Amino acid sequence: MDVQSVLHMNSGVGDMSYAKNSTVQKMITNLTKTARQEAAVDSFRAAICPTTMTIADLGCSVGPNALLMASEIIDAIAQASHQLNRGPSEIQVFLNDLSGNDFNTLFSLLPEFHKLRERKLQESEQEQVHCFISGVPGSFYGRLFVSKSLHFAYSSSSLHWLSQVPQMRLQDGSEVPLNNKGKIYISHISPPSVFEAYKKQFKRDFSLFLKCRREEVVEGGHMVLTFVARRSSNPSTPLLGSYLWELLAKTLMDMASLGLIEEEKVDSFNLPWYEPSMEEVKNEITIQGLFSIKKIELFEVNLDDNSQEAPRNDHNYNPVDKSAQTMAKTVRAALESVLKSHFGEAIIEKLFERYCFLLEEYYSKNKAEVINILIVLERK
Amino acid sequence: MDVQSVLHMNSGVGDMSYAKNSTVQKMITNLTKTARQEAAVDSFRAAICPTTMTIADLGCSVGPNALLMASEIIDAIAQASHQLNRGPSEIQVFLNDLSGNDFNTLFSLLPEFHKLRERKLQESEQEQVHCFISGVPGSFYGRLFVSKSLHFAYSSSSLHWLSQVPQMRLQDGSEVPLNNKGKIYISHISPPSVFEAYKKQFKRDFSLFLKCRREEVVEGGHMVLTFVARRSSNPSTPLLGSYLWELLAKTLMDMASLGLIEEEKVDSFNLPWYEPSMEEVKNEITIQGLFSIKKIELFEVNLDDNSQEAPRNDHNYNPVDKSAQTMAKTVRAALESVLKSHFGEAIIEKLFERYCFLLEEYYSKNKAEVINILIVLERK
Repeated sequence: MDVQSVLHMNSGVGDMSYAKNSTVQKMITNLTKTARQEAAVDSFRAAICPTTMTIADLGCSVGPNALLMASEIIDAIAQASHQLNRGPSEIQVFLNDLSGNDFNTLFSLLPEFHKLRERKLQESEQEQVHCFISGVPGSFYGRLFVSKSLHFAYSSSSLHWLSQVPQMRLQDGSEVPLNNKGKIYISHISPPSVFEAYKKQFKRDFSLFLKCRREEVVEGGHMVLTFVARRSSNPSTPLLGSYLWELLAKTLMDMASLGLIEEEKVDSFNLPWYEPSMEEVKNEITIQGLFSIKKIELFEVNLDDNSQEAPRNDHNYNPVDKSAQTMAKTVRAALESVLKSHFGEAIIEKLFERYCFLLEEYYSKNKAEVINILIVLERK
Repeated sequence: MDVQSVLHMNSGVGDMSYAKNSTVQKMITNLTKTARQEAAVDSFRAAICPTTMTIADLGCSVGPNALLMASEIIDAIAQASHQLNRGPSEIQVFLNDLSGNDFNTLFSLLPEFHKLRERKLQESEQEQVHCFISGVPGSFYGRLFVSKSLHFAYSSSSLHWLSQVPQMRLQDGSEVPLNNKGKIYISHISPPSVFEAYKKQFKRDFSLFLKCRREEVVEGGHMVLTFVARRSSNPSTPLLGSYLWELLAKTLMDMASLGLIEEEKVDSFNLPWYEPSMEEVKNEITIQGLFSIKKIELFEVNLDDNSQEAPRNDHNYNPVDKSAQTMAKTVRAALESVLKSHFGEAIIEKLFERYCFLLEEYYSKNKAEVINILIVLERK
């Protein structure tokens, strides 16, 4: 599977779209809002209050989250510049994602975004900041921006995606698919070669990401990165962070046992996804030495926090079911493109019905949480 | 009709898409290629060989033409920098169009574009130029780019589109639809108020375009603009340049007489389009005084030039029919969005069948030509 041409969050604004099913990602942006705002203001100060400030969202995807994050950062910079009584009068926002991302739907939200910003400015005492928005198609595991052009870059819920499905490298240098029968990600029953391949692919991708950004971000500029991570430094610890993929593999294998898909298809499918430990991330940043770490921490996103209140008059409301449904739709909006590419379109509906059922079962005994990492970096 | 939210060239890559039906626009880009390349190199020299050169396509639409133009300009700059033995090592290309433009399809062509450029560089002795591409959604009748950020801007086959359908302004300041019964554009039977309203709308739009670009283009930077124009300075001269809209109006009225559409619908429809004379354009640029004119000229695009050769083994090939079909599809790919918005989708197929027939009739007696204007400007 050529991840860069296949992978995209579900397009459009329909029931199964990413735009309508990114509650989890929205919760993550809420929890990390202050970190982004502070780092943006620090970048603004470090650049000695430039008249034009350039910021970039790496892996913006489609939907309101991307514009909300941009808006919050613009607010913070405008406020800081008001306090300092100096520019910027203009902010350039680059929204980046793979070229298969639904930029059309994202751009269709812009007229409303600009209207809201204008209204906001009229109501507040903030500096008049002119905001220019561009879409930048391409992989962030390569160069995307002109050298030393970014004052601040951020990436939310994207860097867990690898540039490719990890392969196993043989002694003669050739690469073969992983031997990961019945699983789609590192699992406690996966052979050590699977752990190794995933770990290596992340190391390669993340270091490339850092090198490219080092070229693009100005000295003193900051980056705020959040993505899915795992608590334990042992990647094979069962059901820590990766229960989502254990249960998805189980769903696929159940369907294979019913003859709905071929078992070989499941055996040959692995996710281009990695959940690193904090140590792995820290080590890679330190080894590269291109950015200094200002903050690094794990945090939990708990879907139950979002599902506590029953809607009025809904006596059948069950927060566990609600969390399972939300998570199943979130996973579907994110993974449908790669699953379709490998298994075909026909199985998708049934797959996620069954997956939701397993999630309900799981959430009746476990917290509906996902572990994330937050990293604030400064370019040396 | 809110032109900015309705107007877009036909999306995708299907039979009726703009990407597949922009031969006329391609011929125009071929005829003006040298002008763009020379002006790009002049801009590069004026900016004293910057290490990063920023160029913008205003009204890029969707399909290969936009990337071809960008590629030709990059080639010219790379060659000039090779001769001068100095940068740029990086070129930022902004591709702009209204937010309803099909940026997804445009971006889907980028991986191939980057591959071709890499291959080209390996084969030639040109400087290694790194090229970054962004999409910029929004109207060019407003600000799109950061102040003094563009070294070179160009617009091909776009500035004939107005920001809105012209309205007639009453003495009390209110605006009412034009009284242009049975016509969809200025015609020799239109009342003078129609000419006036169109002329004024163009003047307002074009001056705004110049003012915005003046803020964005650096001193000494150039602009190359091409769009449909008319030969005569009298806008009501029949069938000069606007035969396309005379025949389209006739098609609509024929359909109204058959009861296929309401006549009132035709009466209330006017195109957000204007074909200025060279004098009008020159006057507006001179009055504004923001750019100096380095070149201004009219040129013909003759579809017959494109239809001379019969395909092998096609004994029924008729160049007149071919020109009519090409033009009908070109007009459809460009106008379908605004026609659908006003008349509904149901009439489109029949409308263009009949339109093609009228074009065939017309081209059997007249040249299949469109008059265009080429303007090369330098920012003062």
